[in-house]
Amino acid sequence: MLTLYDYLDSGNGYKVRLLLAQLGTPYRLVELDIMQGATRTPEFLAKNPNGRVPTLELEDGTFLAESNAIIWYLAEGSTFVPADRLGRARALHWMFFEQYSHEPYVATPRFILRHLGADHPRRAELPARQAQGRAALGVMEGHLAGHDFLAGGYSIADIALYAYTHRADEAGIDLAPFPAVRTWLARVAAQPGHVPMLT
Amino acid sequence: MLTLYDYLDSGNGYKVRLLLAQLGTPYRLVELDIMQGATRTPEFLAKNPNGRVPTLELEDGTFLAESNAIIWYLAEGSTFVPADRLGRARALHWMFFEQYSHEPYVATPRFILRHLGADHPRRAELPARQAQGRAALGVMEGHLAGHDFLAGGYSIADIALYAYTHRADEAGIDLAPFPAVRTWLARVAAQPGHVPMLT
Repeated sequence: MLTLYDYLDSGNGYKVRLLLAQLGTPYRLVELDIMQGATRTPEFLAKNPNGRVPTLELEDGTFLAESNAIIWYLAEGSTFVPADRLGRARALHWMFFEQYSHEPYVATPRFILRHLGADHPRRAELPARQAQGRAALGVMEGHLAGHDFLAGGYSIADIALYAYTHRADEAGIDLAPFPAVRTWLARVAAQPGHVPMLT
Repeated sequence: MLTLYDYLDSGNGYKVRLLLAQLGTPYRLVELDIMQGATRTPEFLAKNPNGRVPTLELEDGTFLAESNAIIWYLAEGSTFVPADRLGRARALHWMFFEQYSHEPYVATPRFILRHLGADHPRRAELPARQAQGRAALGVMEGHLAGHDFLAGGYSIADIALYAYTHRADEAGIDLAPFPAVRTWLARVAAQPGHVPMLT
């Protein structure tokens, strides 16, 4: 059985949990408290030297890290990865966009607001990060105004971007100016086998 | 013929140019001066709404963006993408690592040092970014101490991480503490068809 090392408030981890639920793949969950340094122990760094969740352990003891690489691995050969070459490139486009242009500006402000104290110096980062988060949402809005999903049919690209976008309010980012994004969020949440982030 | 919209000092663009050279694929290069706002014009934003180079135009007028998605697209079916499922996941692992844990901490300090003035306020970001860059190089060092390449044989994962790692000195990051990384850089540069970043 697969073992997922995860932290339940992590949107990156939720990508993997959502896909596994929709694939109907059973797995064992090992919860790690990242706020208590559980991903920085020598034991965990032996599993993932970059010290991050989610990390997936395969049945043969192989470890995989990076949420978007994990969901690609799990979804290969299923309908969650586009069947054509251009579709796969478009899915990866949005997944790299997510890690470079979206996650640091939506997930990170959410982390600062939820997990660091009101007088923490990192609060100073919020306005600039939120502005870049709104820019990323604007790019998504432009695409989703003319498309039901990000890369053809519902795919791991939608899973990757749904994870933190649907919690943008917790990052201090209002989704009201992004109606196509909001419609898409509802469309993703209506997919068969959908599960919420925190159960 | 493919058309590559690029800026020659961009390591992200160099990934695409290096792979195209090694594939022996001809292409037309359109140079854009990102320092003069050439990627923020309405004309270019119609090609890539995220306003970044590299952007690849296919023969049918389709546009692809995100350097690592572009090189995946170009390399699919060649030896530059691992032939096995786990190998592909490992290649993507390193490519997502590159965009999230390496590029902002190696490429961005290089950009600040090369393109922004000595009194620019973004200089204040350098120490923290360089520290994270050294941490990313440490993760690579740990892997490369026991492996010739990042994901099996020479692949697009090596191309993705070579691009900015081999210019780490321009980011103010000394590679002396990373001997396995330096040996790997020489190994990558010795691959057939290798071309330097700026010709």
